[in-house]
Order: sequence, then C-alpha cells, then structure tokens
Amino acid sequence: MSDNNEIKIFAGSSGKKFADKICEYLKIKPGKSEVINFTEGNIMVKSKETVRDKDVYLVQSIGLEPNNEFTEILFWMDAFKRASAQSVTAIIPFFSYAQGDKKDEPRVSIRGRVCAESIELAGADRVITMDLHSPQIQGFFKNPVDHLYAMPILCEYFMKNYDLSNTVVVSPDAGFAKEARRYSAYLNRPVAIGDKRRLYHNESAEILEIIGDVRDRDALIFDDFSISGGTLVDLARGLKERGARRIFAGLSHILLNDSGVERIENSPIEELVSTDSVNNKVITDSRKIKLVSVAPLFAETIYRVHNGISVSSLFKGVPKKVLKSSNI
Amino acid sequence: MSDNNEIKIFAGSSGKKFADKICEYLKIKPGKSEVINFTEGNIMVKSKETVRDKDVYLVQSIGLEPNNEFTEILFWMDAFKRASAQSVTAIIPFFSYAQGDKKDEPRVSIRGRVCAESIELAGADRVITMDLHSPQIQGFFKNPVDHLYAMPILCEYFMKNYDLSNTVVVSPDAGFAKEARRYSAYLNRPVAIGDKRRLYHNESAEILEIIGDVRDRDALIFDDFSISGGTLVDLARGLKERGARRIFAGLSHILLNDSGVERIENSPIEELVSTDSVNNKVITDSRKIKLVSVAPLFAETIYRVHNGISVSSLFKGVPKKVLKSSNI
Amino acid sequence: MSDNNEIKIFAGSSGKKFADKICEYLKIKPGKSEVINFTEGNIMVKSKETVRDKDVYLVQSIGLEPNNEFTEILFWMDAFKRASAQSVTAIIPFFSYAQGDKKDEPRVSIRGRVCAESIELAGADRVITMDLHSPQIQGFFKNPVDHLYAMPILCEYFMKNYDLSNTVVVSPDAGFAKEARRYSAYLNRPVAIGDKRRLYHNESAEILEIIGDVRDRDALIFDDFSISGGTLVDLARGLKERGARRIFAGLSHILLNDSGVERIENSPIEELVSTDSVNNKVITDSRKIKLVSVAPLFAETIYRVHNGISVSSLFKGVPKKVLKSSNI
Amino acid sequence: MSDNNEIKIFAGSSGKKFADKICEYLKIKPGKSEVINFTEGNIMVKSKETVRDKDVYLVQSIGLEPNNEFTEILFWMDAFKRASAQSVTAIIPFFSYAQGDKKDEPRVSIRGRVCAESIELAGADRVITMDLHSPQIQGFFKNPVDHLYAMPILCEYFMKNYDLSNTVVVSPDAGFAKEARRYSAYLNRPVAIGDKRRLYHNESAEILEIIGDVRDRDALIFDDFSISGGTLVDLARGLKERGARRIFAGLSHILLNDSGVERIENSPIEELVSTDSVNNKVITDSRKIKLVSVAPLFAETIYRVHNGISVSSLFKGVPKKVLKSSNI
Amino acid sequence: MSDNNEIKIFAGSSGKKFADKICEYLKIKPGKSEVINFTEGNIMVKSKETVRDKDVYLVQSIGLEPNNEFTEILFWMDAFKRASAQSVTAIIPFFSYAQGDKKDEPRVSIRGRVCAESIELAGADRVITMDLHSPQIQGFFKNPVDHLYAMPILCEYFMKNYDLSNTVVVSPDAGFAKEARRYSAYLNRPVAIGDKRRLYHNESAEILEIIGDVRDRDALIFDDFSISGGTLVDLARGLKERGARRIFAGLSHILLNDSGVERIENSPIEELVSTDSVNNKVITDSRKIKLVSVAPLFAETIYRVHNGISVSSLFKGVPKKVLKSSNI
Amino acid sequence: MSDNNEIKIFAGSSGKKFADKICEYLKIKPGKSEVINFTEGNIMVKSKETVRDKDVYLVQSIGLEPNNEFTEILFWMDAFKRASAQSVTAIIPFFSYAQGDKKDEPRVSIRGRVCAESIELAGADRVITMDLHSPQIQGFFKNPVDHLYAMPILCEYFMKNYDLSNTVVVSPDAGFAKEARRYSAYLNRPVAIGDKRRLYHNESAEILEIIGDVRDRDALIFDDFSISGGTLVDLARGLKERGARRIFAGLSHILLNDSGVERIENSPIEELVSTDSVNNKVITDSRKIKLVSVAPLFAETIYRVHNGISVSSLFKGVPKKVLKSSNI
Repeated sequence: MSDNNEIKIFAGSSGKKFADKICEYLKIKPGKSEVINFTEGNIMVKSKETVRDKDVYLVQSIGLEPNNEFTEILFWMDAFKRASAQSVTAIIPFFSYAQGDKKDEPRVSIRGRVCAESIELAGADRVITMDLHSPQIQGFFKNPVDHLYAMPILCEYFMKNYDLSNTVVVSPDAGFAKEARRYSAYLNRPVAIGDKRRLYHNESAEILEIIGDVRDRDALIFDDFSISGGTLVDLARGLKERGARRIFAGLSHILLNDSGVERIENSPIEELVSTDSVNNKVITDSRKIKLVSVAPLFAETIYRVHNGISVSSLFKGVPKKVLKSSNI
Repeated sequence: MSDNNEIKIFAGSSGKKFADKICEYLKIKPGKSEVINFTEGNIMVKSKETVRDKDVYLVQSIGLEPNNEFTEILFWMDAFKRASAQSVTAIIPFFSYAQGDKKDEPRVSIRGRVCAESIELAGADRVITMDLHSPQIQGFFKNPVDHLYAMPILCEYFMKNYDLSNTVVVSPDAGFAKEARRYSAYLNRPVAIGDKRRLYHNESAEILEIIGDVRDRDALIFDDFSISGGTLVDLARGLKERGARRIFAGLSHILLNDSGVERIENSPIEELVSTDSVNNKVITDSRKIKLVSVAPLFAETIYRVHNGISVSSLFKGVPKKVLKSSNI
Repeated sequence: MSDNNEIKIFAGSSGKKFADKICEYLKIKPGKSEVINFTEGNIMVKSKETVRDKDVYLVQSIGLEPNNEFTEILFWMDAFKRASAQSVTAIIPFFSYAQGDKKDEPRVSIRGRVCAESIELAGADRVITMDLHSPQIQGFFKNPVDHLYAMPILCEYFMKNYDLSNTVVVSPDAGFAKEARRYSAYLNRPVAIGDKRRLYHNESAEILEIIGDVRDRDALIFDDFSISGGTLVDLARGLKERGARRIFAGLSHILLNDSGVERIENSPIEELVSTDSVNNKVITDSRKIKLVSVAPLFAETIYRVHNGISVSSLFKGVPKKVLKSSNI
Repeated sequence: MSDNNEIKIFAGSSGKKFADKICEYLKIKPGKSEVINFTEGNIMVKSKETVRDKDVYLVQSIGLEPNNEFTEILFWMDAFKRASAQSVTAIIPFFSYAQGDKKDEPRVSIRGRVCAESIELAGADRVITMDLHSPQIQGFFKNPVDHLYAMPILCEYFMKNYDLSNTVVVSPDAGFAKEARRYSAYLNRPVAIGDKRRLYHNESAEILEIIGDVRDRDALIFDDFSISGGTLVDLARGLKERGARRIFAGLSHILLNDSGVERIENSPIEELVSTDSVNNKVITDSRKIKLVSVAPLFAETIYRVHNGISVSSLFKGVPKKVLKSSNI
Repeated sequence: MSDNNEIKIFAGSSGKKFADKICEYLKIKPGKSEVINFTEGNIMVKSKETVRDKDVYLVQSIGLEPNNEFTEILFWMDAFKRASAQSVTAIIPFFSYAQGDKKDEPRVSIRGRVCAESIELAGADRVITMDLHSPQIQGFFKNPVDHLYAMPILCEYFMKNYDLSNTVVVSPDAGFAKEARRYSAYLNRPVAIGDKRRLYHNESAEILEIIGDVRDRDALIFDDFSISGGTLVDLARGLKERGARRIFAGLSHILLNDSGVERIENSPIEELVSTDSVNNKVITDSRKIKLVSVAPLFAETIYRVHNGISVSSLFKGVPKKVLKSSNI
Repeated sequence: MSDNNEIKIFAGSSGKKFADKICEYLKIKPGKSEVINFTEGNIMVKSKETVRDKDVYLVQSIGLEPNNEFTEILFWMDAFKRASAQSVTAIIPFFSYAQGDKKDEPRVSIRGRVCAESIELAGADRVITMDLHSPQIQGFFKNPVDHLYAMPILCEYFMKNYDLSNTVVVSPDAGFAKEARRYSAYLNRPVAIGDKRRLYHNESAEILEIIGDVRDRDALIFDDFSISGGTLVDLARGLKERGARRIFAGLSHILLNDSGVERIENSPIEELVSTDSVNNKVITDSRKIKLVSVAPLFAETIYRVHNGISVSSLFKGVPKKVLKSSNI
C-alpha cells in the first residue's frame, strides 16, 4: 500500500472514529480539519491542510443527527472543491434519508433524491455507502456510487460462531423479503417472512403471522436497521410462540436508542450483531449486542478506487441478485 | 367536462389505440400529427396543428419496441417544446426500462435513470405512468410523476367475477412479495410466495418452493408483467402439485409473445387478466386472456391534472404502503 | 384583497407563528401540513391539502436550528414541486448562512452559495428574505429574490418614541459602516463607528476605539444581528466612557440566548428593538427588549408578488444605496 | 505506439467489425463486453472488464437501426461513467440524426440536438464522427467533437485509379453545392450542380436541370449518403443526356438497401466508392460498389487524442473552407 | 389588437428605432427603460417600469457593435428575470455571431453556441430572429426560436417594381447556393452561381467563374449580408462581362460601411434593397440603396406569439425547403 | 521551476503586456494565438498551437473595453475547451463587472453573476483575479476562484519609500471602510473615513465630512479603483482643509482617463500608486502616478496552482478578515 500517499481522508464531526479505523487500515494519517459549532447553531468546516490536486475522501454517516450531518457534508464538499481538490468522495456508511419515499402518499418529497442531488451539486464526484434502504437510490446520483454490502461480514460472523444447519432466515416483513432471500442464499438456508397484518378498519389492531416454516428451527432475523427494537422483539416472541428455538438477529445499521437497547436485552433474542456504520453512543456495554466493523471494507474500497482496481471482486461470494425470474 | 377545450392529446406511433380511448372518455378529438418512418430507419415526428400555449399530452408506452418508442418520445417532447407548448406531459402507460438496474452487477448502466433524464431534458414537464417495476424510479425524474396503479382495476375484476373467500394471493417470488402483500391487503386475503431456489454451484438447476399455505385454496397470482409466461405457468403447476384448486393470474402489463400466449392456453391457469397498457398485437382471440382497459384511469388523471384537482383521491381504496414496520 | 384565494401559505416547523401573522394580515387560512420528527432524527414533511396549480409560499427562517430548518426547507420545496404547485416561494425572514464566507480563509466553503443553490435545486422559484448579512448573496440565487429591509420599521419605531435630534447613529465596526450610513441617512443623523482593534501579535488583547464624535449625544447602535450581546454591551460601555448620554440599539434579527438577554438587561442600553424574524423563544418578558413585527411587511410583499404589483414602492423612503462615489 | 496500453476500445452491437479494424491498426485488443437483447425488445449493455480510470472509446454508428443504436450508445455512456472510466468517447462514424432539421417546417424537433444532448448527458466527454450532414451540428455538442473527413480518402482513390484531367465534379443539388466545391478544390477540377426543380403547383412533376458545363467530360458525383440510389441514378442519366462521358460517384456513407444496390448496378455509373462507416450488410459482392475503409483514420485520431497530439494536422491537404467571401 | 395590453416591448440601446416601429404597428407604447454608459466603459441597464408577471420583449440586434450589444442583451435578460417578468423574449433581427464557425479550422470557438447559451442562461425564454447566416444555429438554442425570413418581403419588392420574366437569380458563391435556390423557387426563375476560385498555391489570385447561364438576362443577386460591398460589385462586373443586362441585388442585413456604400454607388448595380434589421447609420441618402422595413413582420410575429396564434402561417408562400432529394 | 513545461499561457487582445511579464517570471514562452477584428465589429479568436491535454491560462482583464474583453474571454474559453485543453483558467487581473449590483434598485441585473456564469458556462475551470469590488462575488462562481490582494504590494511600497509613523489611513467613504480597516491593520495605523453626505431633497448638494482624526497627520488614501480621480482629489482637498499634512493614495486598479490624470497632477496628492492590472494606455509619463506590477504575484500563483502547492501561504502578512465581532 505504498501508493496511498495521495489519499486524503477527512472526518466529519460524527465520523472521526470510523475515519480513524479506515486510516489505520490504510496506514495513513487522517487529514487535519476543523468543524466549528457556533453558539447560534451555525456550523462551519475547514480543512487545515492543502488539498490542491488531491483525491479527498470525507467520512460521515447521515445518521442520528441527520440534518446536521447532511448539511455538514454539503459544506465539506464545497470547501474541498473550492480548495481545488482533484476529486471529492463522500463516504457515507449509513445514509439515513435513503429510505423509500415512493410517493405512495401524495405531496411528500423524495428525500433521497433531494439529498443526493444536493450532495452532488455541492461537489461530490463519487459516493461510497452501504446497504441503502432502497438500493435503487443509487440511481438518484448522477455520479458513480459504490454500494457495499454488510451481508458477507454479518453472515461470516454467524457462520463462524454458530452451527446454522438447522436455521431459518427470517425477514421481518414482506418489504424486506427480497433482501432476506439474498441472506438465505448466501447461507444456503430457507427463508420465512413475518407478516404484521393490519385490519383494514382498525389501524392499531395488528396480528403477526409468519409465512413459512419455523418450528423446531433456530431463527436468524435480518433487517437493514432498527430504531426502537420493537419489531425485532415482537417477531422474536412470535417465532418462539410458533416453536422456534434459538433466536439471533443481524442488522446493517444500528440506530437503537436507550430504551431500544433495553428492549433487546429483555427479549428472547440471544445475540444481535450489527456493523459500526452509525456513530451510536448508546451501544456500549450491552451484553447481547455485538458490533463488527465495516471500516476495513470501506478502507479496502477506497484503496481500490484510488488505485484503479476493480471493486466488484470485493463482493465475491455475494450472490447475484435473486433475479426476478417471474417476469420471464 | 366543459373545460377540456385546451387539452391537446397526441398519440405516438404505438399509442394511437390507447389515445383514442382516452379522447373518447374526455370527449375530445386527438391532435393531428404524423410520424414518418424513413426507409433507412430514421423517424421524424410532426404536429399538424398548432400547440402554442397549449397543455400537450403525448401518449406512448415504451413497450415492445422500446428503443423506437423511447427515441420517438424524445423527438415529440422537443417538437412540442420548440412549438411553444405551454406544458408537455408524457403519458407512458408501460415504461419498459423502469426495471431495477440496481448495479448489483458491476459496469452496467442504470437504464431507468438514463431514460428519465433524457425524456426530461427533451422537454417533458410531467410523466404519467403505471406500475413501474421499481416504483423508486419516480425519483429518477426531477419533475412530477403521477404513478397510477392497476391494482384496483384488476382486483375489482376478480371480486366481481369470482368468489374469493377461499383464495390465497401468490407472489411469484420474493422480489414481488411487497407488492403482493398490497394486493392481498386490498382483497383482504392471505399471501404466499413462490421461491425458485438456485443451487449455488449449478445455476440451471432450480427447485420451486412455495412459502405459505396454499392447499385446498384457490390461488390468485399477481405480477407486474410477463414475457414468456414461463414463470407463471411453472408456478401454477407447482401450486397444483401442492394441492391448490383453481388458479388465476393478474398482470399490470402484458408483454407475452405468440409462444407465451400458447403456453398460457395450455396451462392450469383458468383466466389471466391484464391491462391494455402495452400495444400488444398478439393478444387477440385468446380463450383465457382478458384485457381490462386502464385508459379511463389515465383519462381521468389527465382531466384532474389539467383542472388542478387532486389526483390522490383517485386511489381511495388503495391500501397505504404496507409500512416497513420492522425498522421501528 | 379579494383575489387572494389562490395564495397558499404553509408554515415550516419553526415558522408557524410568523405564518399565522402573515395569514391574519392577508385574511386567509394557513395551509394544512405536517412535519413528522422521527425518533431517530429524520424529518418528513407533508402537505395535507392539494397544491396542484397553486402559488405556494413556505414560511421558515433558517435561524436557531439552522441545519434542521434548512434541510426541512429543501424537503418542502421538493414536496410542493412534485405535488405540482404552480410556483413555490421560500419565505426566509432570517437566513442564517447568508453570512459572508468570503474565502479570506483558505479551504472553507461559501455556505450561502451552497444553501442558495440547494434551495433552488429543490424547487424554489423565488425567495423572500430580509437584511441578509451580505446583501450580495442575492446573486447566489439564480431566481428572483425579494430582499426586504427592517430599516424603515426600526427607524419609525425610534422616531415615534424618542426625540432623535441629538442622536448619533453608531456602527459596531467598520464592516457594518456602510449599512450604518444608510440608517443615518434615513434618520438624517451623523454616524460614528466602533473599531475594535486587535494588536497584531496578540489576538486576544483588543482596544475599542470610536471613530467620530459621540460626546454629549444620544447613541443609537444598529446591527443586523446579535448572538451573545457582547459587542453591543461593550460598545455601549465605550460610548458611555466617551461621554455619550442615552444608549439605544436596533437589530434586524435577534439571536440572543439566555445569557445574552441577561447581559443586555444589565447594560447601559436603555432599549433594544428587534424584529420577530427569528423564532426566538428566550425573548419573553425582558424589560428592555422590544419586538416589532415584520410579518405585515412580508404579507404585503406576498400580496404584491402574487398580484403582479411592484414591490419596490414598498421601499419608498428607504434611501438609495449610498453610492460609492469615491470610484468616480 | 507503445503508449496505447491504457486505451480501451469497446464495440457497440453494430460496431464490432469497425472496432476490430481500429484495434488492429492500434495493435490492441478490443474490450470485452456484452449486449443482451431481451425477448421483449429491451437491451442491456455490460462491460466485462474493469474500466476504472481508463480512457474508454465506444464504437458504434447511428446507422441503419438508428433508434436501437442511439439508445444503446446512451446505455454505454452511462455504464462506463458509473464504472468510473476516466473519460468516455463516443466514436460514431455515421451519425444518422445529424441531418438538418432546420425548422423550416413548424412543429418538428431538432433531432440532432436531441441526440447530441442526450449522448452528452449520458456521459460522453467527446465525440468523434465523420461528414455530418450538417457540420454545424458540432455546435449541438457542448464537449469537443472531432469531425473527420472522408474527402481525402475518396479523392485519393479516384486520383490513383483514374485520369481526372477531363473530369467535372457534380453536386446532386444546390444543398450540397458548398461541399461539392470543396471536393472540386481538392481535385482542382470545375464543378456542376444538379437542380431538380419542382413545379410549384405540382409536387410530383420535376425536371432535372444541370447548372454548369458537363458535355464531353467525365463526371464525378459526390454526395454524403444515398439510401435508394434514385437521385444518383437519375443524375447519372441526366448527365449522359447532356453529353457527359464516363460517370463515377463517391459517397461518405452508404445506406443503400437491396433495391438501391440493384439500381446502381443497372445505371450508367461505372463505379461507386464509399467508406465503411455504416455496418451495411447488403453491400457484398456488388460489381460496381467499392468500399474503402476509414477505420485507420479513426484509429489514428484516437491515437492522437489519447496521446495529446494535434489532430488538425491529419487534415493536411484538405482545403480550408471555401470562405464565403461574398459577404465581404 | 385589443389584447395587447400585457405585451411590454423594451428597446436595447441600438434597437430604439426598430422597437418604435414595432410598437407603432401594435399600437402600444414602448417600455420605459434606461441604459447607462459609464465613462470607464461599463454599461448598466434598468427597466423604469414594473415588469412583474408581464411578457417582456427586448429589441436589439447583435449588429455593428456586436460585443456591446450582446453583453447588453445578457444584462437585460437577467434584469427582466430578476424583476419577475413572466417570460422574456429576445428580439434579435440580426444576430451577428450566428455565422458558421464550423470548426473547419482547429482551435476556434463556436461563437454562435457561446452566444446562444449565454443568452438563454441569462434568462431568454424565446428568441425571434431573421435569416441566420447558418439556420442550423436554431439548434444552438434549447428554447424556441422563431426564425423569420426576409425573402417574401424582398421578393415582393422586386416583383412589384420590376418585370422579372427574363431574370436569373444569382448566388454569390456555392455556400449560398442552397438559399439562392429558395429565392429562385419563390420567384420561379432559374439560378446561377458565382464561383470565385482560388488557385491552390496562391491564395491571393482568384478568378471569378459563373456557373449557369446569364447572357442577355437581367440578374438579381441575393445574399444574406454584405460588409464592404466588394463581392457584390465584383460579381456584378463579372455578370456584365458575361453579357448580363440589368443588375439588382437584395440583402437580408446591411452592414455596409461608408466606403461600401460608395462602392455600390459606383457599380453596375442599379438598385440594392435590404431590410432595416441593422441599425446602420451610414445608409442615409444613397441613391441606389433602398431599405424595406421588417418591423411589421416582427410585430405581427410578437402579436401571434403573445396570443397563441400559429406563426407558421406567416410564411405562406415561402417555398418549403428545397428538399435534399439527392440522398433519397 | 523546471516543471512549467506544460503550462500554456495565452494573452487576450488587451492582456499581452501583462502575459509577457508573467511568462518572463515563469521563464516560458507565451502561447501563439490570434485575435481577428473584422471590419463589421466581430471578433474571432484562435489558438495557433495545440492545447490538447494542456493546462491553459488566458490572461485578460475586463477593463476599459469591458464588453469586448468579456465577450472575447467567452470565445477563448470555448475555443480552448473544444480544442481539448485539460483545464482552462481565466486570469482576470481586473474584473470590471464585479461591482456590487445589490438590487437596492429594482429591475437591474446582477452583472457580476451574469458574467461569472457565462464565463464558467463557456468553459472556465478556474478564475484568478484580484481585489474584486465586492469580494462576495467569488460566490457567483461555482468553480474555484483564487482571489489575490494588491494590499501587501501597495503597502510594502509605501513602507519602503515613506515614514508612515504619523500617517492615518483614509477610506473615501463608508462603503470602503471595511477594506480600509484591513489596510490600516496591515500598516498598523489608525483609520479615518470620508463621508460625502447628500442632503435628502437635493441630490446635487453634498458636503464632505471626515469621520476620525486627521489633523497634523499624513494621510494615505486607499481605494479599489478610480475613474475620474474626482473623489480622490475632493477628499485630498478636504483632508488639507482639516489640517492633514502630506497626502498619498493607493489604488488596486487604475482606470483614470486623460482628464483624470490631469486632475491628479493638479491636486494636493503627492504620489498615487497603483498596480498594472488594467491595460491603461493613458498612464505614461505622469509625474505623480506610479505603477507597481502584480504580474509576479499572478505568475507565482499560476506556478503554485499548476504544481499543486498551497496558494494561501502567498498571503502571509495579510491580516485575517477584520472579523465582524459585533454580532458575537
């Protein structure tokens, strides 16, 4: 990795820890910079070293303070561009607004498009991110997006630590079924789907059904993120009621707040594994929650992008999309 | 509908029949126009009446000759803009390239974004379309998209013609599960999911599983489109093997070719119902295939758009998106 | 004002009070809308009534939570555009990031340009704002900006309540001198300028000088905004030391926090008058601080913009810019 | 040509033969790629090797299937850009829609502009093409266009194979007169112009006149392309009637279909020479039609573009534009 | 013409006379405005009446001071847009830089594209112009261009004042041949073409040939503009030498300077007729030069554009383009 | 400076002298180019050597013929871009239209934005300029702007040639006060401000006041530019009347015409020092006016930009902006 001398990695105000791990992997020093938080709420960003003609990478999730983090990213992009960086890449391990505003509801905005366009307008030449809630959001960007997957890292963890031969992969709902199928393909295990049905004239009353067979099997729930832990815990209980044995869960991004952590602790879930994509300060000494780092994955991607090496080979072992063969 | 005098509806070369139905509903005459197909493959479009200061609607699916139809739409948009139309709306009942190029594969294009951007650049102020393969593609457009649903029309057809009390809605695969759940919610019926699993080291060998309970039930398969009919027919047979009784199918868009029609005819499917969004000339005197027209739905939408009336009320009865509650 | 029926005024989450005052002036009802603050920090905006073909105005300062307010404005603009509003105007009484990032420092962003561009990209056809810190920032927008002045309202207040015949207008520093000259021209009074000099090799040691004559005069300090009140109070004390009599102050935007309010209370300033452009919750029962509303000014501007009436006549009495005659 | 290792040349589905010739000249291997033609008409393109940081050239005329070829080019541009190519150049030897839609007719589109803008929007950094029907169309592109000429290659062919001392260059009509003058200047021979006049009230009746002197001379007709061969053959007969001796013809692009080839065979034209810019499969064992390759010209241009060498010197011997001196 | 009350016509500094004629035709008053020419060369433009929500037309050729006139147009467009005009149309009777920079020469700019893009960027929604040197330049604009023709007005003048039965239309060179053919078609007369040949190795030595028959005929030369009159006079002499009888000339735009006028006066040309598209102050009491006004043509076009009436019918009698039938 | 071989510096028609000085500093030859001024007012630019893949710098102020110089810059940018320059930088030592059109007046354009946008649209990747009248105009550009300061060069001149220990820095008016404060900080001297007050109802009657103490001091007036010299001379006289001793003046840009030079000669100003940013031909053998060259400053900046070295260190000694501490 001798050729990394031109990579400049800067951390946004909530990305310092993650950026440090990336720099450690790449054996380089993080760029010197400053974020000033003014009393009245304003923020101002500043690179404290020259970036002229450098390839700059700015590390910051749009996570638990999404508006601050998003606005700060805009300012960083502009600052680097005006300081004549050769290229600017936004490393956004978790991209909060990449959720699916599909306009099923009238008169809402498509927030992912708004954010993507603004980030590009401000100067981003490329974005590297992971497990977007709606992967189609890559198409909201005009510039290249490297979309990474937590799947191999989460799956390898479970494969190494548990015997999965009698395990069923569980999707919390129909909306995640497609993704859950990919996890099940990676692990070569069957899949089941949670189905929380609302009665049509009574929004609050819901019954949880589970489509597929879970009795006498271990259950491994996957989801892209969790906020309150409620769905995970409800599902875990439902699985138990239907005769499932041990329950585990894997998350791409962990947004749990204090009560969410507590809820997990008190649930039938034995272990919940997530990545460190979000700078979540409440996950500290939980007995059940385990973080695995994806910083090396991002670091390796940066290395390859920077040196013109194919990134796609990073995904060897990741099953090609479960082709929607039904239309054929 | 006295105020329709300023609406100008033009048909692209493959949209004449659909445009005529729209005009009939709106009680107006289609705009006079011409598409010239030159011997060497060139096309040229021409409005034969003034559109100065008019609100113009161009009707053409990107369907069975998608490249011709797409290119023609670009020329229409530009022609109307340069002829000083006040606004130009592209009515694209089926939008072929709105499929999900999610870049799971490296080095492919995101075709939906390419087409969306080109259509807007050429002059489209608005797009009206139906049942995009990936609804997120709305966000590929910068301008407003009215995204219509075939669901109520397909569902009402089945509710009127059949007793659905013992029916299960079937999704052909995990990728359509989310949508199938919406159909099942509309009909208030349970859902099952086909799951064609590939063995990891042998791409060609597949076994079809069905997640969920179908024995002794009628099965109503929904999908957004079908080309060869293969998946539908395989699924129908699999359902039969697992004890399902009568089999029906509903499609948003019908792309079947000759052999596909024949395949349906010889299958356990009793009736296949689709909309007329695609100008498909091979669907004529099929015994089993029935087309229901969505032209009135598009016409009513145009009427409302033109007169500044809310379009969202058109979707009353359509269940709000099955909220991805798992992340809560 | 019978023709206002088509104006639709919506409030962002921090603009409700100001929007209500505008609507009261215009005798219309505010648009129904909703801002959802999700637990994990996300926001989502939604118009609860149709805006199709309407001229929509969204009221929200970028004030004391600037990143939330800015991001929310982006989502509002996009939501209205995609809901087919005819035009969308952002009413931003205080625009926090319109400060002068003039790149005197290397490698910072020009935040005003970033914000202006993003707001326009998201859909704003026009912006109405007041007393931008750097008025040149109007040129950061491509679309029309109506730039209003608090000056007449602040000046009229002082003229009505005090005898200004022996008053000198005071600028807190050289940077505001140009604007202070306009206030002094409006009031037809002389001007003096505070000059906090830093010793070159010692950044912390500063001495305050006052350029111009203040002895035995009342002093009326003007500034565009104040955060801690520190400069105002230091200046007031310096004026007292140099023999000034009564001290008053006028601010366009009031960003004072709790300690700032207290500092003012304990200072030689007799009365501080500001507009209500910022939704500042700490200004409540201050003895010395008085708010005058500029909501009628914005309402009248909206009325004129909407009805195609010249806005410039609103500024009758505002002196033309003190032309920089020195270059002639 | 040792420095070519970074050039990556890919062929679109109709450009394989031409790309192979270019690669042969440059002594490199064509890039591995795939175009998938789905049953329902969709196409999908895919680079099968990394293009990260490479300078990519895509070879494809917009020729005899112009809409497929144009749409495919858009997808290629986007695919290469999203795969992080350093630059993308579209090599379009024949650009079908570069014809002169001059809006003499109302309410038509300017197709060349539509295509140019879409190609650039999709990602083309540069275009290399030859003998555009309207050379001004270069200005429809924002990015650099290298516009090559078939003239030297066609002229050298005739100079080498025939004695041209008693030859007159003939333009088929007034529209090509300007270009014909350049051919005549290159060959240093006089010019004559065909003039097919329509009687004003009878569109079908036409009489062919020939402006200029052709009696007892050999005639060498030049045109940029021919579809049916009709005009060429009529003109050849008219020339014969007016006493011309041997008749030859040169074309930049050959679009002749089967019957066109036959028409040429049965005409007074002795030999027709064209370039291989179009992938025309019907020109095979014609006795009279001869193809000369411009692939080396394109290859040499690519080589120079890639290595930062002036391209203009390639055109030595091409007469500067016959300056429109009349306006002086 | 009762509906003209909303048209606002403003004159640029060199367009006052032409704008006055337009206003006279439309029976409206020109807009009040001001152009300030500062001592140091700066210009500043200002509308002295409100244009809010008005359709504004700015009249100014890019003529004999093209850079001043072009820059002034940019400032006008921006001023009207920022003053909230509903639409802004640039009326540019003569567009100097619309000449054909076809990049036959390397490393020149395409000036027409540069100017067109800048004018649109500054705010022009539409351009109305006449007889562009290269009509394809319409495609350099993204917005609608109404391209008017002087031909009917020039031709009608000659038809009314002379017996043209024995007249030949003459193009000064091959470059104008296509246009000359249109004149000849309008007048139903034959055509001849001047051909000033340069000897290849001696740029200065030229011989004038005339292709086509002129002996014993009257000659009517047409061209789009003339600067020095040199080509016209040389051609006239050449025609005389070859036995032509009376010589007349028609120009779309007259750029003649003092010596050019004198040269015409002393030539065999009996009468030279041009339009008043250029504000040319040296054409005053010439015996031979006659100006016919195209202001009514522009006024009628504005009236139709403004009232949504087809403009194309204005061109009745203008022959459709002499279709380039040779390619068929 | 061995690495300059790839820098290509071209001069616009009024920038030749300045470009030559830059090239001398960099020890390179200026690029060969040509500007053709046609009789009718048109200009055309042309690079006479290849710029393919080069970093090109075009030197030209927008100065005493601003419209010609601005238009020429647009053509240069486009010419270089289309000739495939790798990057194009506009070196604009004086940028005339960067004055503050702040829309205090209604219905004027923001000329700086219009010019900035057009220059970028035409192809400028970067701009290097000096002492913009409104420094905020940097934000009118999307691309990087290197904004240089004449201050150190002017100040060093006075420090070297005069004893400044009893000198006061004088701003001609309140508008320049902020900048004057920076000069005074650089020189560590106090500041005074001229204040030409207009009586409100009589625009022509003005009285000059001076805010601050000047008696028995030498006065050093600074301003960014002067056209007629009138303000400078009036101020100098006013300073004399108030007891000032010797009077000097420093200007960033010198736009004086003949009578302005004479006015300076006959004034109490002992010496006026300016940079050579403007190609002003009337400043030749003035006794009092002295030019110091900023070409080395620009040359050094180009060198650093080209070699990726920080430019900000060039400004060592330039005081950071006099922070507007009053708002704190």
